[in-house]
Amino acid sequence: MSETLPQSVLSGSRLSLTRLLTQVENGTDEGRQALSELFPHTGKAHLLGVTGAPGTGKSSLVNQLALHYRQETDPPRRVAIVAVDPSSPFTGGAVLGDRVRMKDLAGDPDVFIRSMASRGSLGGLAQATAAVVQVFDSAGFDVIMIETVGAGQSEVDIARLVHTTLVVEAPGMGDDIQAIKAGILEIADILVINKADRPGVEATERALKAMLELAHPVKRVFRHHGQDMEVPVQKDAPGGGLWLSPVLKTISTSGQGIPELAGAIEQHRSYLLHSGDWVERDRSRLRAELDTLIQNELLARFRRETQPAVYEQALALVLEREKSPWEVVRELVNGSHK
Amino acid sequence: MSETLPQSVLSGSRLSLTRLLTQVENGTDEGRQALSELFPHTGKAHLLGVTGAPGTGKSSLVNQLALHYRQETDPPRRVAIVAVDPSSPFTGGAVLGDRVRMKDLAGDPDVFIRSMASRGSLGGLAQATAAVVQVFDSAGFDVIMIETVGAGQSEVDIARLVHTTLVVEAPGMGDDIQAIKAGILEIADILVINKADRPGVEATERALKAMLELAHPVKRVFRHHGQDMEVPVQKDAPGGGLWLSPVLKTISTSGQGIPELAGAIEQHRSYLLHSGDWVERDRSRLRAELDTLIQNELLARFRRETQPAVYEQALALVLEREKSPWEVVRELVNGSHK
Repeated sequence: MSETLPQSVLSGSRLSLTRLLTQVENGTDEGRQALSELFPHTGKAHLLGVTGAPGTGKSSLVNQLALHYRQETDPPRRVAIVAVDPSSPFTGGAVLGDRVRMKDLAGDPDVFIRSMASRGSLGGLAQATAAVVQVFDSAGFDVIMIETVGAGQSEVDIARLVHTTLVVEAPGMGDDIQAIKAGILEIADILVINKADRPGVEATERALKAMLELAHPVKRVFRHHGQDMEVPVQKDAPGGGLWLSPVLKTISTSGQGIPELAGAIEQHRSYLLHSGDWVERDRSRLRAELDTLIQNELLARFRRETQPAVYEQALALVLEREKSPWEVVRELVNGSHK
Repeated sequence: MSETLPQSVLSGSRLSLTRLLTQVENGTDEGRQALSELFPHTGKAHLLGVTGAPGTGKSSLVNQLALHYRQETDPPRRVAIVAVDPSSPFTGGAVLGDRVRMKDLAGDPDVFIRSMASRGSLGGLAQATAAVVQVFDSAGFDVIMIETVGAGQSEVDIARLVHTTLVVEAPGMGDDIQAIKAGILEIADILVINKADRPGVEATERALKAMLELAHPVKRVFRHHGQDMEVPVQKDAPGGGLWLSPVLKTISTSGQGIPELAGAIEQHRSYLLHSGDWVERDRSRLRAELDTLIQNELLARFRRETQPAVYEQALALVLEREKSPWEVVRELVNGSHK
C-alpha cells in the first residue's frame, strides 16, 4: 500500500514536501486536505521573521544564520527559509537571493528554501505564507525564517505569524527612513545593524536606541503638580517578564556577530516560553487564521447561493451611481438566504 | 431646518467634511450612512496614486503638483491629498510631510490634506482609504492624490483604487532596489525620476527604460526555426489604444519638470477616457469594494448568530492541535445556520 502525501511528508520525503508546498500555494483542495491532516504535527518550530529595507543585507544575514544553525549548534537544527517578496506579482528579488544562497547551503537536505511572490490579492500572500510555514512546521523543521522586504503593511502581517521578529537596519540610511522607522520598531523583538563595518554605525545605533526608548519606554514621564515625574512601566507580560529589544551589530559578509545574534534569538525563545507569550502568540495567530477561513468559507457559500446575474445587476446599479455599495450589499446578503 | 451632514458636505462646509472624514475613518454607522447618501455624487474626480521608496521626495512632488493645479491650471482645480503611511500603526512620516506642506498650501480652502496611518488590520487601510477618497470625490475635489510609501503590498492595493499611478524614483538607488522594482513597474502609468539634479540620473533613466521594456514589451521575441523573431504586441486596450508609460524627470525642490508631469497626467486621463479604461477601472474598483463589503456583512451576521462560547471552544481545539482550522471552520459555518 502506498503512502499518502501527508504521510510521505512526515516520513521526510523532500519530493513530497515540494509537491505539497506547490499544492498549498496554489490553494488546491488536495493541498488543503493534506494540510488539515498535518496540522496536529505543527506548533513545535521556532518561527523567525526577518524584515528590513532593501540594501540592509537581510538575505545574506538569513543565509549566515542558517549556516550557524547547521554547523554551530548541537544537534544541528533543520532550517526552512521562506523568502517573501510582496512588491512583485511575479518572481523577483527573492529568486535572485536564492541563487546567492545556493553556494553555501546547496545540497544540504536539512535546509529548504522557498520563494514566494505576491498572490496579487489582498491578504493572499500572508495567508499563503502562513500555510507554507505550517507545512514546514509539520515536516519537522526546527527553525523557520520568513524574510520579507521592509516598509509596508506586509511585515506587520508577517510579524503576526512569527514568534520572534528581527528588524534589520544598515548604517547610513537617510532621515526619511528614520521617519518611517517608528512603526517598524513596534514589531521588533531584536534589532540588527548589519554591515556594521560601514561608516555611521555609531550614529545608527544611537538613533535606534533612542527610538526604542520611545517605543518601549522603561519609565514613563508624567506631570504631577507642575513637576515631571518618572514612574517605572509595569511588567506586563503574562509570566511577569519584560523583554527589552536588544540592538546587535553584525557583518553578514564575514559572519561577525552571528553567534551573538543566534544567542539573542535563543534568549527570546526562552523568554516567550517562560512568560507564557509563546502560547499567547500561538493563540492570536490561530484566532486570526480562523477568522480568515471563516470569511472565505462564508464568501464561498454566498457565491454558490447567489446567481451571477443578480450580482452583476447589483454591480451595474453601483456603477451607474443609482445605489451605493452598502445598499446593494445589504440586499444581496439578506436576499441570498431567503 | 438644519442641514444633514451629507448635505452640508455637498454645500462645501470644510468643518462638515473634516467631521465626516473622521466618522468614515473610524467606521461609525453615521459615517457609513452619510457615505451611502453621498455615493451618487462620486465618480467625477481624477484619482492619482503616487508611490515610491523613502527618500525619493514623493511628498514634495505631490506638494508641487498641488501648487500647479491651484496656480497654473485654468480654472484652478480643487485638490485633496491623502497621505497613507502603512508602516506606522500610529502617526509617523505622513504627519511630518504635512507640516512641510503647510507652508505652501496652508490657508487655501480648495486644498485639503489628510494623513492616514495603518488601521492595524489586514486590508483595513486600503478600505479606509477608499472610503476617504469617496468622501473627497463627492465633495467635489477634482484631483485626489493618494501618496503611499513604496515597496509592499500596500501600493499594489492603492493602485487598484486609482486611475493613474505615478511611481517615483531617485538617482543613485542601489542594486537591491533595482531587484524589487520589477513588480512596482507593473503598476506604473507614469515613471518620475525626482531629484534629477543629482548624479547618476542618466543611469537611473537607462535602467528604468530597460525594465519598462521588459515589463511592457512593445515587441515580443520568440524562437522560430532556430531564429529569433520579433512580433509587435497586440494593442489590447478596449478602445484599441496602448499606453506606453513615459519616464519623466523632475526636481521637486525647484518645481522643474512639474508642468510636463501635469501634462502627462492629463494625457493619461484622456487615454483612459477614450480607450474605455476609465470605466473599466471604475468597474473593477467597485467590484472589489462590493466583495469586501459582502465579506464584512457575512462575517458580521455570522458573529451575531454564533455563540462566543462555541467559537472559543473551537479555537481551543485548534490550539491543542486536536482539530485543524479547516475542520472547525466547516463545523462552525455550517452549524451557525441550522
